[in-house]
Amino acid sequence: MAANLRLFGSVVHLCKRHAGMLQRYSSNTSQISEEVQKLLSLKEQLGDAKPQKFQLKTPKGTRDYNPRQMAIREGVFKTIINCFKRHGAETIDTPVFELKETLTGKYGEDAKLIYDLADQGGEILSLRYDLTVPFARYLAMNKISTIKRYHIAKVYRRDNPAMTRGRYREFYQCDFDIAGQYDLMIPDAECVKIVAEILSELNVGDFIIKLNNRLLLDGMFAVCGVPEDKFRTICSAVDKLDKTFWEDVRSEMVDEKGLAPEVADRIGEYVRLNGQLELVEQLMQDEQMMKNKMARQGLEEMKLLLTYCQLFGVLNKVSFDLSLARGLDYYTGVIYEAILTSTAEKAQTDGADKNESVGVGSVAGGGRYDGLVGMFDPKGKKVPCVGVSIGIERLFSIMEAKAEAAEGKVRTTETQVYVASGQKNMLEERMKLCNLLWEGGIKTELSYKKNPKLLNQFQYAEEHGIPFLAIIGEQELKDGVVKVRNTSTREEETFPREKLLDEIRTRVSSS
Amino acid sequence: MAANLRLFGSVVHLCKRHAGMLQRYSSNTSQISEEVQKLLSLKEQLGDAKPQKFQLKTPKGTRDYNPRQMAIREGVFKTIINCFKRHGAETIDTPVFELKETLTGKYGEDAKLIYDLADQGGEILSLRYDLTVPFARYLAMNKISTIKRYHIAKVYRRDNPAMTRGRYREFYQCDFDIAGQYDLMIPDAECVKIVAEILSELNVGDFIIKLNNRLLLDGMFAVCGVPEDKFRTICSAVDKLDKTFWEDVRSEMVDEKGLAPEVADRIGEYVRLNGQLELVEQLMQDEQMMKNKMARQGLEEMKLLLTYCQLFGVLNKVSFDLSLARGLDYYTGVIYEAILTSTAEKAQTDGADKNESVGVGSVAGGGRYDGLVGMFDPKGKKVPCVGVSIGIERLFSIMEAKAEAAEGKVRTTETQVYVASGQKNMLEERMKLCNLLWEGGIKTELSYKKNPKLLNQFQYAEEHGIPFLAIIGEQELKDGVVKVRNTSTREEETFPREKLLDEIRTRVSSS
Repeated sequence: MAANLRLFGSVVHLCKRHAGMLQRYSSNTSQISEEVQKLLSLKEQLGDAKPQKFQLKTPKGTRDYNPRQMAIREGVFKTIINCFKRHGAETIDTPVFELKETLTGKYGEDAKLIYDLADQGGEILSLRYDLTVPFARYLAMNKISTIKRYHIAKVYRRDNPAMTRGRYREFYQCDFDIAGQYDLMIPDAECVKIVAEILSELNVGDFIIKLNNRLLLDGMFAVCGVPEDKFRTICSAVDKLDKTFWEDVRSEMVDEKGLAPEVADRIGEYVRLNGQLELVEQLMQDEQMMKNKMARQGLEEMKLLLTYCQLFGVLNKVSFDLSLARGLDYYTGVIYEAILTSTAEKAQTDGADKNESVGVGSVAGGGRYDGLVGMFDPKGKKVPCVGVSIGIERLFSIMEAKAEAAEGKVRTTETQVYVASGQKNMLEERMKLCNLLWEGGIKTELSYKKNPKLLNQFQYAEEHGIPFLAIIGEQELKDGVVKVRNTSTREEETFPREKLLDEIRTRVSSS
Repeated sequence: MAANLRLFGSVVHLCKRHAGMLQRYSSNTSQISEEVQKLLSLKEQLGDAKPQKFQLKTPKGTRDYNPRQMAIREGVFKTIINCFKRHGAETIDTPVFELKETLTGKYGEDAKLIYDLADQGGEILSLRYDLTVPFARYLAMNKISTIKRYHIAKVYRRDNPAMTRGRYREFYQCDFDIAGQYDLMIPDAECVKIVAEILSELNVGDFIIKLNNRLLLDGMFAVCGVPEDKFRTICSAVDKLDKTFWEDVRSEMVDEKGLAPEVADRIGEYVRLNGQLELVEQLMQDEQMMKNKMARQGLEEMKLLLTYCQLFGVLNKVSFDLSLARGLDYYTGVIYEAILTSTAEKAQTDGADKNESVGVGSVAGGGRYDGLVGMFDPKGKKVPCVGVSIGIERLFSIMEAKAEAAEGKVRTTETQVYVASGQKNMLEERMKLCNLLWEGGIKTELSYKKNPKLLNQFQYAEEHGIPFLAIIGEQELKDGVVKVRNTSTREEETFPREKLLDEIRTRVSSS
């Protein structure tokens, strides 16, 4: 196969040359026919093996991470995990695929985006679509009724990728959830706090965390005159407000979903409202609303949540927004969505259409889902849960762009010492010295060439940001010493071999 | 659906009772028919929704990791990543699936174990089977000719799982590879060093790293009289020596693969040999061998490799073993396999059959594969590579068993302070204090109950190994102080609120 590929490579190469020649010497027919002959004879050599359409790529909507991107990714993860740990979370992991039936009936219309595995005999499996459903399955399966856990892993959606804006078919989610029967809004407020901490620490610009409540939404729908069997579908329509204009949403409600125009208009009045505690107070004056049990409870929860946000010092980061609906069916109470406001603003003033800009600003979302675990428990036993998911890919893209703009070198290794020699036949001695440093816990590299040039070794250290070189030659070996060179200052000092480890340790800890 | 599930749960419950009764009161027919009536009426309530065969499980051959297992897993990863970084490696990541054609023709007979994704329109995809082929694809796609990288990720094989022994269908691989045109055996020796460091640091008992060379194997086959077109299939047969006895391997060679019995016997003489540098010397006296170019080069490489292993201080951990063959087609030079000897010995003296014990002892493997990247390059450009893969799941299992045996508590969170109060209506004050500690970078938790009992809060801190409590009440608030309680000594000290962060920091850094 390798030989065929090589041959095929030659054909491709000749084709390219051929094409180039057609442009440059289109009159020189003899040269062309010569090339054609070469092509034909090469094709003959390929014999039966047709040139395969061999694609050297990753699947649509996915990407590799190179070492530089990995260094940035690890930095982002570190910030996020530190925050989760600061809030006392444990971590779990679940398989990348689940029984297909585990995912069935959890995602509404989005179920069409689930990746299925081929039926190769045995169980019918699907790749996980999010981390929430596997978490609920885990709780029910292990009969766990209280846990505070984070889970960082990749999820899969056969969506239309928009990779330049950080939207992939394979992407990380960083989920933090609190399960357990607790007093109202205390864990819910901690989730808001966590999103605020992470976005602040990552330094990705201004952001706002929109808050709303499914109970309040349903109460509001009832007050406006939406029939109960249309709550969920009307909620889906409202959810599109972050991507399209009210006029479009209204026409979806009226023309597609058969809502009376005056009902839609009443909804329109409410969903334009946003604010903080004063908005809660205002809605609490709305007699219609207060007569509805769901709306009343939703408003009371919002009041508590905003009060707790204030105590956690994040009131200035949140907005109580009646247009926030969230797509997923399983939310039962508070819902969250964090958006980057500086990015969205920029895109809008640039004249990008709303669909392309505002929606992309979303970097975290979540809410309360008190019924999901019960869907897995054989006896329907409920475990109340609330959680948030950080949309990490968008944040990676921003951090990458920032690193790009800063033009600073991102170190992709942590090597502290490069063992070098300028003399021949020093390989074995370099290896021994390297081993001494490894055994001492020093991050060390050496050239894999038998007799590398000293200058090349200096250059390697400089290019890779390795702070020190340990240099030996005949004289150093005879004297039992090692020369230590500081890569940036180019200063050199000589130490007895037995003191080398200590001297290096002192230097790397202060550098 | 939740209601149906609950109902279904009741049916299952009654069925179980029913079965139990049949055993206990098999004569009591009236009670049985009563139960049957109950069952039938419940079944009726279910209506059209047939009781689903709802399975609350992870897919075959996979598992969840609970927080305790995650804590152990993170410890193992830390040791491994530290080692990779000590050797100057960068890291990359690739998608969990590849185009199916990327995997085609790389795994020989094992290709049947590849998981395919369903064809949902679009590209034909498969889950990755290892990290080596995606690495080679990555190098060719990005035209990289030198890199030293590690990659830790899950791979997928539709194999027969043996989960108690750490064999799963979804499992982690930890790969370290060095790509580049370098002098003979220098990177190859570093791979051996890395395996030795990791297995020593993880403290999983005695181990041996078997070494061999595909060139030497092929030369040996030629010397024994194996026809060249049978080298790979005979190599596959030799590979089974770690799982079955020579007699079985011999009969596979002779009866199934048509090798002359005397040729098989000659191979049998060689594959029982193992040793170190003295074995190299012995084979170098073998005139037949030294006449064969491949065998000669293989032996010269082994000599160099063992010399370098000595310089790296790991000669006592390696064995030059002519029976080591490795299954995969793509190896072209040195091959490695590390096995835990204490485990294997134990299993054997326990009388377990060879298939069950020795093979399981394998915890790392790898080798040189100079042709694989060329299979992806359109021009067939080769990039020499050598690497090792750590079989981490087996190591997890051992570490878990050790933790189990030690009976020590594995902490699954890192919380440093639990904010508590023994008085009512202190929730808001607890939240404010919690926020103060979070803002100061202290890992802090609080009870999500409005008015939790003090004793419950003490108990929570004790059970979760949280070293300190920060306690407030009316008096503390009035005095502007906080009481700090040491969970293990139960000593309490009181500090002014503004000094709290410093006092806590001093205490957690020394605890």
